[in-house]
Amino acid sequence: MTSATFDFAPLLPAGLPAPAAKWTGLAKYSFIGGNNDADQVPVEGLIDAVNAVLKREGKTLATYGLASGPQGYRPLREFISAKLKRDAGINCTADDILIVSGSLQALDLVNQSLLTRGDTVIIEQETYQGSLNRLTRLGVNVVGIPLDQDGMRMDALASVLADLKRRSVTPKYIYTIPTVQNPTGTILPEVRRAELLRLSQEYGVPVFEDDCYADLIWDGKRPPAIHAMSKTGGVIHIGSFSKSIAPALRVGYIVAPWQMLSRMLALKTDAGSGALEQMVLAEYCAPHFASHVPKLTRGLRAKLDTLMEALNEQFGTAAEFCDPKGGIFLWVKLPDNVDTLKLYQAALAAGVAINPGPEWSTDKAYAGSRLRLCFASPSHEQIREGVAVLADVCRREFGVPARSANVEKRA
Amino acid sequence: MTSATFDFAPLLPAGLPAPAAKWTGLAKYSFIGGNNDADQVPVEGLIDAVNAVLKREGKTLATYGLASGPQGYRPLREFISAKLKRDAGINCTADDILIVSGSLQALDLVNQSLLTRGDTVIIEQETYQGSLNRLTRLGVNVVGIPLDQDGMRMDALASVLADLKRRSVTPKYIYTIPTVQNPTGTILPEVRRAELLRLSQEYGVPVFEDDCYADLIWDGKRPPAIHAMSKTGGVIHIGSFSKSIAPALRVGYIVAPWQMLSRMLALKTDAGSGALEQMVLAEYCAPHFASHVPKLTRGLRAKLDTLMEALNEQFGTAAEFCDPKGGIFLWVKLPDNVDTLKLYQAALAAGVAINPGPEWSTDKAYAGSRLRLCFASPSHEQIREGVAVLADVCRREFGVPARSANVEKRA
Repeated sequence: MTSATFDFAPLLPAGLPAPAAKWTGLAKYSFIGGNNDADQVPVEGLIDAVNAVLKREGKTLATYGLASGPQGYRPLREFISAKLKRDAGINCTADDILIVSGSLQALDLVNQSLLTRGDTVIIEQETYQGSLNRLTRLGVNVVGIPLDQDGMRMDALASVLADLKRRSVTPKYIYTIPTVQNPTGTILPEVRRAELLRLSQEYGVPVFEDDCYADLIWDGKRPPAIHAMSKTGGVIHIGSFSKSIAPALRVGYIVAPWQMLSRMLALKTDAGSGALEQMVLAEYCAPHFASHVPKLTRGLRAKLDTLMEALNEQFGTAAEFCDPKGGIFLWVKLPDNVDTLKLYQAALAAGVAINPGPEWSTDKAYAGSRLRLCFASPSHEQIREGVAVLADVCRREFGVPARSANVEKRA
Repeated sequence: MTSATFDFAPLLPAGLPAPAAKWTGLAKYSFIGGNNDADQVPVEGLIDAVNAVLKREGKTLATYGLASGPQGYRPLREFISAKLKRDAGINCTADDILIVSGSLQALDLVNQSLLTRGDTVIIEQETYQGSLNRLTRLGVNVVGIPLDQDGMRMDALASVLADLKRRSVTPKYIYTIPTVQNPTGTILPEVRRAELLRLSQEYGVPVFEDDCYADLIWDGKRPPAIHAMSKTGGVIHIGSFSKSIAPALRVGYIVAPWQMLSRMLALKTDAGSGALEQMVLAEYCAPHFASHVPKLTRGLRAKLDTLMEALNEQFGTAAEFCDPKGGIFLWVKLPDNVDTLKLYQAALAAGVAINPGPEWSTDKAYAGSRLRLCFASPSHEQIREGVAVLADVCRREFGVPARSANVEKRA
């Protein structure tokens, strides 16, 4: 036997994603990822909660699924049911909820239970990169619907549905992030939600509603969830605690009719999601969620203000954006000659991490000069400094923002 | 718009598993599942650990992957590296380890990175049901190697590898649970491990070593891991904290060369495994793991004694089994006329849950009169009562154990 290194390469199947690179730490100025504000993690409250719940029920950790079965820790499902009723108008019980390991597992379970290679789905033209990547890897045809300042355009959706029907294609779902859309930050008004449901019903295509940012609205006011407005149960609704409490806790949920929940449960072969994280969330959230969230969003709004000020100061009119009503990201348009995929590389070399637009859109040309900037994690100072560095890189690489225009405007 | 219920059925793809049934609670006498002894969960130690780690590092929960990146919480990887060196002889650093959401996610990541429909893998003839089900669902051909009291038979493995080679089939891996085999409880001796590595090298087939029960050995003595003995790096090693600390904490790990770890990391699109569970395990285990485990195994050994006594008392010679050197389950042979798939139904109706052998074997006929009994979770009293009920059901349904023989033997 030789001691040459075993080579796995001949055994790898076709179609694997590229291997991951070794992790080298976060960028100095990181405007990417759904990370939150470290100062806003309710550490003391979580400590109190974990002490209480472990003292009372710690022994139940000896059993997969605790005493609650495979749908997840029952007190957490009961909290979610009450919260969804209060905030989103959804009428559901703990039995209609499946706790998952972050809403990313929800995406996987919905996709696995509905999609097969060659299927078609409808999504928002600008959308969450993780959703888009999943669909690409599954070999699914995605049709992107353009958005305006009120979210998905219903006229465009109607025309796509009609066109697909003419070609005898029934899409498997209409995926939307209606409440603080990722990355555009828009909120779909109630009247469009009603129209979306009408079209869903007319064409027999369910709605897949991803509400993971819905808690983070500055004035706390949101339209009812699409799930809440449906009279037929043709909506799968997912949510998460990553944005409202802490991203590193991997806890999300799915609300769906049992016909689909039973399918997803059969596909969830992980022996349950992490129980300690479910227990501490239930114990903390029941008394504190409603008061924690407004405090969190005030802090996020202040960081957004810093980001928008810094962009105005550094880019002048060269950076266009709408003031979003909530969330943790800003969708920014730079001049047409800026290629944000190239900017991404140059900025990273200068210590600034951004999300280039084409990775967040089905229309690579439209998104070519756009980018997403996440503002929850960096400090106010990092936001100001990072935007200044980004503007310098833009100037150097693309000649924008023009120094004179900018200086004149602000001087 | 009507308010008829939306029907998802026409949208479901072919080949989905059957929908899950609604959960109705655990059986009165539950001898199934990898659940542990509730009295042995180190609740006080976990509480101390979670307080310490959250006070020190709670704010890092604001960032996906904490400050450690996508391979998982670095202090936990450092503990695992030290533990694997001490207990299993494995030389690896924190960089060679990927933390996953229980070793079930490890199974999925290894399978996704190596297997495609139509591939062939070699496994132990009696094996973990979850591994078997995964392979079946992936459309992979499984070849089972028979076991004896020392685990996988190397003569049978050699002959299968030679036969597959003649047919130009290169299996993607040889999957083994070598250290407290599930369900047989055997431990593969060092000499067989060396032979397994020789065959792996000769045929270019990597070894997939699942060591999730390896901590639970009565005398604490185990052969070196196959990974530790390999000179070529052709072994993927996985483990878990489910059996040694608590099943409801979903934390496992993979040790593999970067060539494979980088592939699995690219497939792990869950934004990291639950951080709080990783943090509390690292904080608890570094000082306490080595003293906790022997206490745990003493308790498990006592429950096994109760189970074996109860079986001898209730079944006499009709129940055959070997006294395992560790673990949480006993693999039992009943008389040939007992069909454990039928027994499963009848026993469940009487309040006793068992694992019927055919679900844990590639040889349904061989395993037809066998069953797996897990003994960690039920109390001593439940074990005695449950075995008595099971014997009654067996008598009623299959005429064994014969009442007279049994009474005569024990009277």
